[in-house]
Amino acid sequence: MRASSRRWKRCSRAKRVATSRPDRTVVIFGVGLIGGSFALALKAAGAAKRIIGLGRSQANLARALKLGVIDQASADPAIVAEADLVLIATPVGQMGRIMEAIAPHLAAHTVVTDGGSTKQDVVALAYAKLKHRAAQFVPGHPIAGAEHSGVDAAKADLFRSRKVVLTPLPENSARSIARVRAAWRTCGARLFRMQPAEHDRVFAAVSHLPHLLSYALVDQVARHPNGKALFDYAAGGFRDFTRIASSHPEMWRDICIANRKALLVELAGFERELAEVKRLLRSGDAAGLEKMFARARIARAKWLKKQQ
Amino acid sequence: MRASSRRWKRCSRAKRVATSRPDRTVVIFGVGLIGGSFALALKAAGAAKRIIGLGRSQANLARALKLGVIDQASADPAIVAEADLVLIATPVGQMGRIMEAIAPHLAAHTVVTDGGSTKQDVVALAYAKLKHRAAQFVPGHPIAGAEHSGVDAAKADLFRSRKVVLTPLPENSARSIARVRAAWRTCGARLFRMQPAEHDRVFAAVSHLPHLLSYALVDQVARHPNGKALFDYAAGGFRDFTRIASSHPEMWRDICIANRKALLVELAGFERELAEVKRLLRSGDAAGLEKMFARARIARAKWLKKQQ
Repeated sequence: MRASSRRWKRCSRAKRVATSRPDRTVVIFGVGLIGGSFALALKAAGAAKRIIGLGRSQANLARALKLGVIDQASADPAIVAEADLVLIATPVGQMGRIMEAIAPHLAAHTVVTDGGSTKQDVVALAYAKLKHRAAQFVPGHPIAGAEHSGVDAAKADLFRSRKVVLTPLPENSARSIARVRAAWRTCGARLFRMQPAEHDRVFAAVSHLPHLLSYALVDQVARHPNGKALFDYAAGGFRDFTRIASSHPEMWRDICIANRKALLVELAGFERELAEVKRLLRSGDAAGLEKMFARARIARAKWLKKQQ
Repeated sequence: MRASSRRWKRCSRAKRVATSRPDRTVVIFGVGLIGGSFALALKAAGAAKRIIGLGRSQANLARALKLGVIDQASADPAIVAEADLVLIATPVGQMGRIMEAIAPHLAAHTVVTDGGSTKQDVVALAYAKLKHRAAQFVPGHPIAGAEHSGVDAAKADLFRSRKVVLTPLPENSARSIARVRAAWRTCGARLFRMQPAEHDRVFAAVSHLPHLLSYALVDQVARHPNGKALFDYAAGGFRDFTRIASSHPEMWRDICIANRKALLVELAGFERELAEVKRLLRSGDAAGLEKMFARARIARAKWLKKQQ
C-alpha cells in the first residue's frame, strides 16, 4: 500500500446537515450483533418509530422480537417499500442477493446503508443490483466488531464513541449522506469518510490480516500432532491473541474473499516480516530481535495512549 | 514437533511431600512481575520470614522495598548464603551470570529455582554454572505472564489457579522438588511436571510463536508507509491480538534466542498455514476458507470451555 495522498477527513460538526424528517420506519437485514445494536441504539434514543427485521434465521428473528430489539419480523424484502431507512447488516456475501430483492420496492425517499467490513465489493454490488436506486445507497462500516454474533450479543451502546466510516458514492445526495450520518450519530458513533479502495487497504492491514493470522494460529495448534497437550498449556497471551479466531466464520470468509487483493498484499508484507524474524533467529541476532520488539512495543504504547 | 509418547503428569495431591522446614529466608533475583508476585504471595501466606531482593535496577529495588514486596535489598550475590530458597526471576539471558555468582555461596540445604520461560537453556546453565550445587536447582516456569513488567505490576494472587511447570533434574532430591512445589502451592498455583525439551516445544507453539507474530504485526503496521493512518483505524481486534506485543523486549529477546530451534520449527509450520491460506485466497476458495475458520473457532471454543 502506498501512503495516501489525501487526508481522511473526519466529518466536522460544522458540516452536519439537519435531516428534514426522522427515519420513522427502519428495516434491518441481519439482526445480529451490528444490526441488533443499531436497532437498540435507535430505540433507546427514540429515533425510530418502527423497526422491522429480516434474516435467514427465523429463530434469531423470533429471539430479536422477544428481546424487543425489533418490533416486527418479516420474510418479505418488499417490506422495504415502507422504510425510511434500510440497514443491510449481513455478511457481505449476502448483500448482492438482498440488494437485488429490494431494488424494485424502494421508494424514492428511502436511504439504504450497510455495515459491511469491505467497501469496494459492496459499492460494486450497489451499482449492479440497486441500479437506478444506487444513488440512495450510502456505504458504511461501523468499527465495532466482536467475536460474539447473533442478536443476543447486541447492545444499545455498542457504537458509543466507536468509529463509523462512510465511503459515499459520487451519486449520493448530501441529504442521503446526512441521514445516514445522523442515524450513526444517534448511536453515539464518530463519523469518518474514506474512499472505498483506501478503506479496504487500511482494514486489510489492521483488521483482516490479524483475523487471518489468529485463525491460522489456532488452526495450526488444533492440527498439531501434539494439539491436545498444546491447548493444555495455552494461557492468557494465547487467549487474547486468538480472541478474534472465535469470530463468525461465514462473515470472515466473505470479508477475506471480498478483500483478497488488499489482503494478499498485506499477507506478503507479513511474510517479509517473518522472513526477517527468521533471519534474526537463525543468526542469533539478539540485538536485532530486541530492536524489533522494542519498536513494536513503543508503537503500540503510542497507539494506546492516543486511544485513551 | 512429534506427539509426546509420555503423558505429562500433574503432580498428584497424594504424592505431596511435606517439607521438613519452612523457607524462612527467601532471596529473589529480579523483583519484577514474577519475582515480586512470588514474594507477595509468600508474605500473604506467612510462608517466609525474610525476603531479600536483588536486581539490576536500584530504582526498582527501592520501589519494591517501599511497597513492602521485599524486606531487604542487596547488591551482593553472596547474600544467598543466608537463603533457604532462591528464586531467579530475571530474563533468561541474565541467569548464567547470576548462577555463576551465587554458586560459591550456596549452603548445602538451600534450594534454587527459576521462573524462566525456556527450560533446556536454563538446565544447561545450571550444570555449567552451579556446578556441584546443580542438584539443588529445580527448574520451573510459572505460566502467568503479562504485558506489564516491573514490581508495580506484582500482585499476591498472580499465580492463583495458574499452572507452574517444573522440569526437575535427575539429580534433584525428592525433598528439593517438594520444597519448590510447596512454595508454588503456597502461591496458589497448580503444579505440572515436564521434560525440558518437551516444555520448550510446547511453549514455542502456544506462547513464543504468538508473541513473535504479535510483535511482527505491530512492527509491520508501524513501518507501513501509511502507518499513522492505519493505527487510527485499528480497533478492538487489533488491540487484543497485539496485547502481548507490549511485553518486555529484553525478556522476549532472551526467550526467542534461547528457544530458537523449537521456535523456528513452529514458525515453519505457521508459514505452511499461511501458504495454505494464500492458496485459498488466490483461488477464491470460499468454502475452504470457511472450513478453516470454523475449525479454528470450534477448537478455540472447546479450549475455552475446558479452561472454565
